[in-house]
Amino acid sequence: MTIRYPNGNAYQAPAAKTGPKFPSTYTNYGKRGMTLEEELNESNTYYETTGVAVVHKKPTPIKIVKVDYPKRSAAVIKEAYFSTASTTDYNGVYQGHYLDFDAKETRNQSSFPLKNFHQHQIDHMRACTAQGGICFAIIKFVTRHEVYLYRGTDLYDFWDAQLKGGRKSIPYAEIAANGIQITAELQLPIPYLKAVDQLL
Amino acid sequence: MTIRYPNGNAYQAPAAKTGPKFPSTYTNYGKRGMTLEEELNESNTYYETTGVAVVHKKPTPIKIVKVDYPKRSAAVIKEAYFSTASTTDYNGVYQGHYLDFDAKETRNQSSFPLKNFHQHQIDHMRACTAQGGICFAIIKFVTRHEVYLYRGTDLYDFWDAQLKGGRKSIPYAEIAANGIQITAELQLPIPYLKAVDQLL
Repeated sequence: MTIRYPNGNAYQAPAAKTGPKFPSTYTNYGKRGMTLEEELNESNTYYETTGVAVVHKKPTPIKIVKVDYPKRSAAVIKEAYFSTASTTDYNGVYQGHYLDFDAKETRNQSSFPLKNFHQHQIDHMRACTAQGGICFAIIKFVTRHEVYLYRGTDLYDFWDAQLKGGRKSIPYAEIAANGIQITAELQLPIPYLKAVDQLL
Repeated sequence: MTIRYPNGNAYQAPAAKTGPKFPSTYTNYGKRGMTLEEELNESNTYYETTGVAVVHKKPTPIKIVKVDYPKRSAAVIKEAYFSTASTTDYNGVYQGHYLDFDAKETRNQSSFPLKNFHQHQIDHMRACTAQGGICFAIIKFVTRHEVYLYRGTDLYDFWDAQLKGGRKSIPYAEIAANGIQITAELQLPIPYLKAVDQLL
């Protein structure tokens, strides 16, 4: 029997797809289209709404030069520039612990270039570590689809060595061996607090 | 003898000022010209450089609408708007403790109007308190030249009462009685950590 649309046209079943919908090497890595920042924001929202932790990304620091105040409407910033953050991007509180971290991604397969960090961010993390805060980096190897928590104290060692003429990157093998891998879970693209638990 | 500038013009001594430099009622209240934010930033810088705590004000959140990328120079934000913060303005770490607070000033002598806070700020502080963070408000009565640390838990009580039809402000007498007064010290316009010590 021919099934017809209300306008009389005959319905044609879509052609059966041949082969798998995804290449056979496809693995479900979760929401692939999200940036690392979006994945962390979603994770932090989940953590906050479930009462696990309160962690936020700080707003991007902006140097405002010119603002217009039109009558009867909101102030409009007409000229401003991006300025360099003096701290890391994320901080918050988790079961009494102060957390402080930055999230970085690299397309480099074999190492994480230290130029992703700035001196003042390292200084800030080190100062927080000295105050008893839990400091770390969340490093994503984009092409490997792998995310790691890497301890601040390990990062400082590589940073200091670099300043003394050492290598300008942290080898992937080092991060894979001494970092803590984080794998996506339902509703939690980056369940980093599980890795934080191992630092406590 | 006439003293001359290199170009030959004669030097004239400025006319002697008559009368006192300041009105006779002038009292030295410290750096009177500083805003509460400037006083806190200076205090936080002092605390950080002396290794006492790491506390920063978060950047003002801005919604960016239009950015120009001129060749060979920095990106210019051409249209942006101030957006509402979803958290408090200040947080950081002090000897292992997570600190979270907002700073507000009022010219009102007899009470602190609760409209200085927003629901989401109270929600944020309450969530941080639940995580074991130390949450409070720094309240400045501008015309009294008095600054208090007021506990988050006391603030939440007044906030909740207001929502149930209670008073829309916290009486000055309540803040003076149950808050902890903070008085300026050398290099420390607002030595609030001394007050925080009483909360630990």
